[in-house]
Amino acid sequence: MNKVSRVALQIKKLDEDAMDAARASQDLLTKPRGSLGVLEELSIHLAGIYRTSMPFIRKKVVFTMAADHGVTQEGVSAYPSDVTSQMVLNFANGGAAINVLARHAGAEVRIIDIGVASGMDWPSVVVRRNIARGTENMAKGPAMSRDEAERAVATGIDLVYESIEDGANAVAVGDMGIGNTTAASAITAAITGRPVASVTGRGTGVDDVMLEAKIRVIERALMTNSPDPSDGLDVLSKIGGLEIAGLAGVILGAASKGVPVFLDGFVTGSAALAAHSISQNSRDYMIASHVSVEPGHKFALEHLGLTPLVDMRMRLGEGTGATFGFLIAEAACKILSEMATFESAGVSHSSKEGKQ
Amino acid sequence: MNKVSRVALQIKKLDEDAMDAARASQDLLTKPRGSLGVLEELSIHLAGIYRTSMPFIRKKVVFTMAADHGVTQEGVSAYPSDVTSQMVLNFANGGAAINVLARHAGAEVRIIDIGVASGMDWPSVVVRRNIARGTENMAKGPAMSRDEAERAVATGIDLVYESIEDGANAVAVGDMGIGNTTAASAITAAITGRPVASVTGRGTGVDDVMLEAKIRVIERALMTNSPDPSDGLDVLSKIGGLEIAGLAGVILGAASKGVPVFLDGFVTGSAALAAHSISQNSRDYMIASHVSVEPGHKFALEHLGLTPLVDMRMRLGEGTGATFGFLIAEAACKILSEMATFESAGVSHSSKEGKQ
Repeated sequence: MNKVSRVALQIKKLDEDAMDAARASQDLLTKPRGSLGVLEELSIHLAGIYRTSMPFIRKKVVFTMAADHGVTQEGVSAYPSDVTSQMVLNFANGGAAINVLARHAGAEVRIIDIGVASGMDWPSVVVRRNIARGTENMAKGPAMSRDEAERAVATGIDLVYESIEDGANAVAVGDMGIGNTTAASAITAAITGRPVASVTGRGTGVDDVMLEAKIRVIERALMTNSPDPSDGLDVLSKIGGLEIAGLAGVILGAASKGVPVFLDGFVTGSAALAAHSISQNSRDYMIASHVSVEPGHKFALEHLGLTPLVDMRMRLGEGTGATFGFLIAEAACKILSEMATFESAGVSHSSKEGKQ
Repeated sequence: MNKVSRVALQIKKLDEDAMDAARASQDLLTKPRGSLGVLEELSIHLAGIYRTSMPFIRKKVVFTMAADHGVTQEGVSAYPSDVTSQMVLNFANGGAAINVLARHAGAEVRIIDIGVASGMDWPSVVVRRNIARGTENMAKGPAMSRDEAERAVATGIDLVYESIEDGANAVAVGDMGIGNTTAASAITAAITGRPVASVTGRGTGVDDVMLEAKIRVIERALMTNSPDPSDGLDVLSKIGGLEIAGLAGVILGAASKGVPVFLDGFVTGSAALAAHSISQNSRDYMIASHVSVEPGHKFALEHLGLTPLVDMRMRLGEGTGATFGFLIAEAACKILSEMATFESAGVSHSSKEGKQ
């Protein structure tokens, strides 16, 4: 059995007892029952993931994986491919949105070259795990071999295991790759069964004519490759991207170690769809930090049965939206561990509840 | 001219030049234009408030004002009136949700007794500005005199001025008062013109029968008092609450000093409606941190022309939702001040923008 399947089999169901205990604790705290909405639900979810009634976020890491996409040859992006490489340098220098927002949330960023085309000699802060210098053009054939897809997923697993051993107990997934919303739309269409046009958006900002062309390219990629939606590795290899496969690995690896994964936007949503197709249980460890402006994202979340914590009309990727997931999740844990109970604070219960 | 009118006249329009400059800066940063959604818009809004292209949040204070409501005699709340006083002690001991969430957001909490009924000898951390031991029953007559309402608003102004002198440059409003969603619904109905039933919810958790009764009580209060929606002080005195009037003062005071006010949920929304009725300009300084589950809140925000940053299905009050407004606003400012530009990072613009 290969590594990916082995890890997938290690992903447990959530701990229902811990969730029941957290739910019971919430109802003792000095607030009307349910009045903290998403914070209460999330604290209970995290209790199930961490298998304790008192979840606690210790160390947060964002995995921002970068790769190039052969499909950019078809003119699907408003930015040139060079930008992938330029942005990796920007991440390394701490000047990108994900650097700023991760600092704000007190999270570390790991920048990974898993498939950038430039062959650049990166600064040491960039983790070098280049599997190929970008994918092939999926409009003409498979984006990569099954072996490459498997190695990319295994790389994500290895990297998240390293971080978890190093103390991380909350991880986020982020992406960088010019052309990768094209791959994400293809994956979303293949796995959710939605028409390509309904799951394809403007990415970094293509105009109407380019959007039409993008839709045709994705339709051609699906026709040419016929990916099998029940086989995540088949989908990733035929119409995926190296960063998307790597992030699917991060998700599976984190889930197998009982660590929550904070999803970001549309591209990480497609990685989540692939991870879910490899292991249905992995879905329980995913937290949908936000919903992206990219139209396909809400369908991906719907397919996964996930409700986004917030909608801030973002569409940047890199892991930016996931940093808000971190901040909200920490608030949720603190509510559970730091608030006084009605009894300890000497506060009367509601007249109704008092009668029970 | 009285203090409230004097302060109201000092509230300036936003600085459009600073907003234009911040907007231009946003478009130079290494991300597709507009891709940070709410964060970009909020950074531009804050530039207009702070009158600088580079807004910066230095010190954050939550004003949690507590008062009792005579209308609880009509049986409109699921909790007994004693809980107002018990919760003030819980705030003082740091065990309430607002204490936990303010700590998480790095904000100070000021707890103010502006109208609690108990006459308790508070710990020193509670600011003693009790104007009356709760309001009168508004179903039978005015909740307070116009003079009391004016003094409560002036108290809010004084307190926020103190904090601003002490270095605060971002403030949030929060409420505690058993029965205060009844007052908030009455104010929202009076000022927005919406039917009482559409702006009245379950508060801390009344059942169907009590909800029906609550609606009838509010309708009676409006009939009995006929508040003038164009006169904020008239509305506050007849159907308001002492904490709601005090919070309207915090809003007006902050706005007059060019400091943004982060609104919380439904009760602070009604304070914002009253403040807006006293000074239309004050609205520009309000940031709608979230939208509450209480059905009247969205109508209040609509009337004010405010879009909530997030919806986390919260309905607790105390200022809890506003702490997320703080966290998001700080992120917005940091994006503007800490991100690299396309030029400084050596990142290519989009092919389209490059041609411009």
